[in-house]
Amino acid sequence: MPSFGLRHRRAWASLFSQLLRPSGFVCIREVHFHSQVSEAMLTSQLKPHQEKSNFIIKTPKGTRDLSPQQMVIREKILDMVVGCFKRHGAKRLDTPAFELKEMLTEKYGEDSGLIYDLKDQGGELLSLRYDLTVPFARYLAMNKVKRMKRYHVGKVWRRESPTIVQGRYREFCQCDFDIAGQFDPMIPDAECLKIMCEILSGLQLGDFLIKVNDRRILDGMLAVCGVPESKFHAICSSIDKLDKISWNDVRHEMVAKKGLAPEVADRIGDYVQCHGGVSLIEEMFQDSRLSQNKQALEGLGDLKLLFEYLTLFGIAEKISFDLSLARGLDYYTGVIYEAVLLQTPAQAEESLNVGSVAAGGRYDGLVGMFDPKGHKVPCVGLSIGVERIFAILEQRIKTSGQKIRTTETQVFVATPQNNFLQERLKLISELWDAGIKAELLYKNNPKLLTQLHYCEHMGIPLVVIIGEQELKEGVIKLRSVVSREEVAIKRENLVAEIQKRLSES
Amino acid sequence: MPSFGLRHRRAWASLFSQLLRPSGFVCIREVHFHSQVSEAMLTSQLKPHQEKSNFIIKTPKGTRDLSPQQMVIREKILDMVVGCFKRHGAKRLDTPAFELKEMLTEKYGEDSGLIYDLKDQGGELLSLRYDLTVPFARYLAMNKVKRMKRYHVGKVWRRESPTIVQGRYREFCQCDFDIAGQFDPMIPDAECLKIMCEILSGLQLGDFLIKVNDRRILDGMLAVCGVPESKFHAICSSIDKLDKISWNDVRHEMVAKKGLAPEVADRIGDYVQCHGGVSLIEEMFQDSRLSQNKQALEGLGDLKLLFEYLTLFGIAEKISFDLSLARGLDYYTGVIYEAVLLQTPAQAEESLNVGSVAAGGRYDGLVGMFDPKGHKVPCVGLSIGVERIFAILEQRIKTSGQKIRTTETQVFVATPQNNFLQERLKLISELWDAGIKAELLYKNNPKLLTQLHYCEHMGIPLVVIIGEQELKEGVIKLRSVVSREEVAIKRENLVAEIQKRLSES
Repeated sequence: MPSFGLRHRRAWASLFSQLLRPSGFVCIREVHFHSQVSEAMLTSQLKPHQEKSNFIIKTPKGTRDLSPQQMVIREKILDMVVGCFKRHGAKRLDTPAFELKEMLTEKYGEDSGLIYDLKDQGGELLSLRYDLTVPFARYLAMNKVKRMKRYHVGKVWRRESPTIVQGRYREFCQCDFDIAGQFDPMIPDAECLKIMCEILSGLQLGDFLIKVNDRRILDGMLAVCGVPESKFHAICSSIDKLDKISWNDVRHEMVAKKGLAPEVADRIGDYVQCHGGVSLIEEMFQDSRLSQNKQALEGLGDLKLLFEYLTLFGIAEKISFDLSLARGLDYYTGVIYEAVLLQTPAQAEESLNVGSVAAGGRYDGLVGMFDPKGHKVPCVGLSIGVERIFAILEQRIKTSGQKIRTTETQVFVATPQNNFLQERLKLISELWDAGIKAELLYKNNPKLLTQLHYCEHMGIPLVVIIGEQELKEGVIKLRSVVSREEVAIKRENLVAEIQKRLSES
Repeated sequence: MPSFGLRHRRAWASLFSQLLRPSGFVCIREVHFHSQVSEAMLTSQLKPHQEKSNFIIKTPKGTRDLSPQQMVIREKILDMVVGCFKRHGAKRLDTPAFELKEMLTEKYGEDSGLIYDLKDQGGELLSLRYDLTVPFARYLAMNKVKRMKRYHVGKVWRRESPTIVQGRYREFCQCDFDIAGQFDPMIPDAECLKIMCEILSGLQLGDFLIKVNDRRILDGMLAVCGVPESKFHAICSSIDKLDKISWNDVRHEMVAKKGLAPEVADRIGDYVQCHGGVSLIEEMFQDSRLSQNKQALEGLGDLKLLFEYLTLFGIAEKISFDLSLARGLDYYTGVIYEAVLLQTPAQAEESLNVGSVAAGGRYDGLVGMFDPKGHKVPCVGLSIGVERIFAILEQRIKTSGQKIRTTETQVFVATPQNNFLQERLKLISELWDAGIKAELLYKNNPKLLTQLHYCEHMGIPLVVIIGEQELKEGVIKLRSVVSREEVAIKRENLVAEIQKRLSES
């Protein structure tokens, strides 16, 4: 569907209103060397690494730098996400990058092995945070906060085998929105799904679907199918693979590796291959086995109410009740959800498989784990998978050949003559003090052509030019880089004229 | 000087245009309980921590959470700082929180012991970054970038003994601006000092001074005073204490603890007690001992040129040439600087001693340490001490009794009647989709008074009210929270009317 991809490329491109000529690092040909270092002193202090064996300059495995080009894309995404969180009345919170090690234990089930620990250098045992949810729960319990709508943007760390092609890293950024507090049922839950829809639509990632299930329905289903409680975890993790491998393979794993009776696996198969909307919820209410289970009925009742609210929000058609959705983390207790892109727009042929781009659920017991008296604070929330969204958008921009402007400089201060550094410095200082974004070349006597080339390379729209003639007449030349038109402006009017031009563009 | 403090309090207050009534966590009296958790399931999975011995809920030593109120202050500071960096044409960069351990070795001198190492869990040996400068140098070398003006906002970690009263933490935020590349002398260095002035003035922290020195002058001075090169480091660290203890105490340390001859210490004393402007530079040029030293002369020549540019930037009176400034980090090679507040505005009596609030210098050899062939890229930069600035501003706001608004919600959706949840959800969805920041209470049947109280508590300016009468007439009531005036508006005009009101306010 090339027209689909194209439409989306164009729409996203409009977000980047300042896309310009190739930026990157501008080469200026003549370089005047000036020894600002005493070589003798330096070498006595600093030994270059090449003297050591096996030294490779790199970032740690599974991590990366973000270049200025990448940071522009990253910040566009974060602005959109944070803007949505604020639209829904959330406050911002920040927590340390590491927590006491014991804060993170028994929260992540099988994934606990992926937690980064800090070395014991004397003092407390510490671990890097694995997500933003557990620190939030710790904050609520520690400060005895019973009600809070907060967002948190920050890095988290997981020692996963990085498959970088799919946008998975050991260090990655999460954007979390959570609602803590005892409220009437499913209203905050519905808002979380609304937020996911707003963000995924706003980012123009193409068509998406949010799968919804409930831990109580999942547990109830396993119980009525005859799975012993001790195997719930293992069987859930098999079910969770259904978006990657076929039911036959999942069934084989359950029976051959996890020792489930074939008829039990088949009963599970009847359920986990179901997905649909409100009608599927009704069907499950009537299901002879499932309707016997109290937990499952509670979950189904809540899902029904949820879909009522989703319909009022106009997003019901984006949500699919999916009995195969299992979400690994131990702390979920109620509704769970996960957003997937239905196709990778424009790059389907390049098989950029990004998996889920947002997920979350209800965790009513987590805060109580931190409270000395076990007092619970019900919570529901979501997390946006920034790295995966980033991978899609970066790929799209690459494919389109668009260049991204990495600075916001509005005015360049130039001179056609030698020995005008002093005047340029005075002038640019005036611009900075007036709040105008301005640059000059760090050279005593740059050539005019070099200066104008720099503006074109960097996409700077305006140039102010000062020379002997201008100085004598008390004027400055103001030049448009694109049209190359020049006008002389009285020096005292320059700032006002520049501000007028910039507000018009 | 109470009038001084007051003036600054008022000026800063104007930045917070939306300061309102006490916000915090609003208590709504009636709570309808709904069991969204299967208790049996939860307790089987989650064990509260109180069952373990000695469990205290806290953040790790030297770290802290930032509450929503604190995050508002933090973000105002970061916006100001980043705005200035962009005004000077910088691109944004990001690097991982940890680096290969060997990247950080031999960069920080005596401070290396403060680096946080990660536990060896198999694989690479890693350390949390100690500053943003070394990762920047590593980035330049790794990508063979020869020229770049970048900024970086991020957390760094140091295992210092935290003296929290002074705003020192083991995890803290830095804002760095650096210029890498071979340029004509002292132009980038002068811009760094200009940036420090713009930021410190912009934040209205009160009067400040930037001390400037040069590593070459410092080393030259030690040499001509007769300090053996092996003792340069130790003596520098003594000199560095002159802003905290008297010269007599520093002298005693040099002689008694570090084995310096008394007459050598006295010669040092003659220099390090000097500070001033251009005239002091001239004086040092004439100094019989110092003028014998090639390094010192190079440093003095650069400082003289620097002051020329600072005068053109109109900031020379903020800069003091100070022979006692030593800066601990190993990587500095040329000019070094450090900004100090001349008094703690408004809270002098509370002895909130924050020390230096910004610092930096030239490090021409650091990139070469990472380059396989030792190729150098000269760099100069600065770092803003966000935590210390934050401590001052937070204290000031506390003293003034001002309350900070922690959300940006513009409109609250209310109803005076029972059974209007559906209409409220439809209405708020329309507002969200129009980009309006809106909230409602997560209750089926909230009381109108509770809803209006919430708006007053949270500083929400507008309320839209929908009831049976409005629904029948196809209107919505729009209420101003402050004036309590209400008007009926046709439903189809509501979004436009709200947007008009918000743009006027």
